[in-house]
Amino acid sequence: MSDIKVHDKKVCEVFHNSIEVIGRRWNGAIIYALFSGPKRFSEFTESIPDISSRLLTERLKELEEFNLVNREVVSDRPIQVIYSLTQKGQALQPIMESIGNWATQWQSSPPEEIICIEKQA
Amino acid sequence: MSDIKVHDKKVCEVFHNSIEVIGRRWNGAIIYALFSGPKRFSEFTESIPDISSRLLTERLKELEEFNLVNREVVSDRPIQVIYSLTQKGQALQPIMESIGNWATQWQSSPPEEIICIEKQA
Repeated sequence: MSDIKVHDKKVCEVFHNSIEVIGRRWNGAIIYALFSGPKRFSEFTESIPDISSRLLTERLKELEEFNLVNREVVSDRPIQVIYSLTQKGQALQPIMESIGNWATQWQSSPPEEIICIEKQA
Repeated sequence: MSDIKVHDKKVCEVFHNSIEVIGRRWNGAIIYALFSGPKRFSEFTESIPDISSRLLTERLKELEEFNLVNREVVSDRPIQVIYSLTQKGQALQPIMESIGNWATQWQSSPPEEIICIEKQA
């Protein structure tokens, strides 16, 4: 009981920062898109059609700084950049899946909309 | 394999919205603070000292609209309002814990800072 009080006094920075990076607009969607494998920049816009190039660039950079995403230049003519998840990013998969299950259970949306969060084969 | 492609084409709205509500600045901290029990408005500022009253009001209202938080007026003189988690909000506890475990495993912060995310007694 005393533990709860101590922990609760100030919600810790690490937890706070982590959940905000995962949840920041588009970041969850970008991470989710990478669970199915590495992607070129242009491939993200297929998965996440509403994001602008400027914002996608910004978010990928942030995820790279947070060590969730790797950026690799694979050819220089034409320049080709591949984005993939780091081990830390891959380790988010069960968490993303549990958020998906939670959303499935508690949202009132039709089932068609939520099958995308099922476990990947 | 075809499932992955279909799911990945457009990252679904339900998942997207859920993770963004959980992750929006302060929302994770507010939900976390409520895991230890219902709270008066003023008690949040002990747990989350950096949040302004204006922003706390706004976030609590958002969480209420998303059916994560209950707002209950328990006395009118002086007016006393108690905030608690709904069942949907309580159901986030294992997810928050897994985010905490992930943060513990992958962050480079000293252990003192991250004990607050351990399972509550």
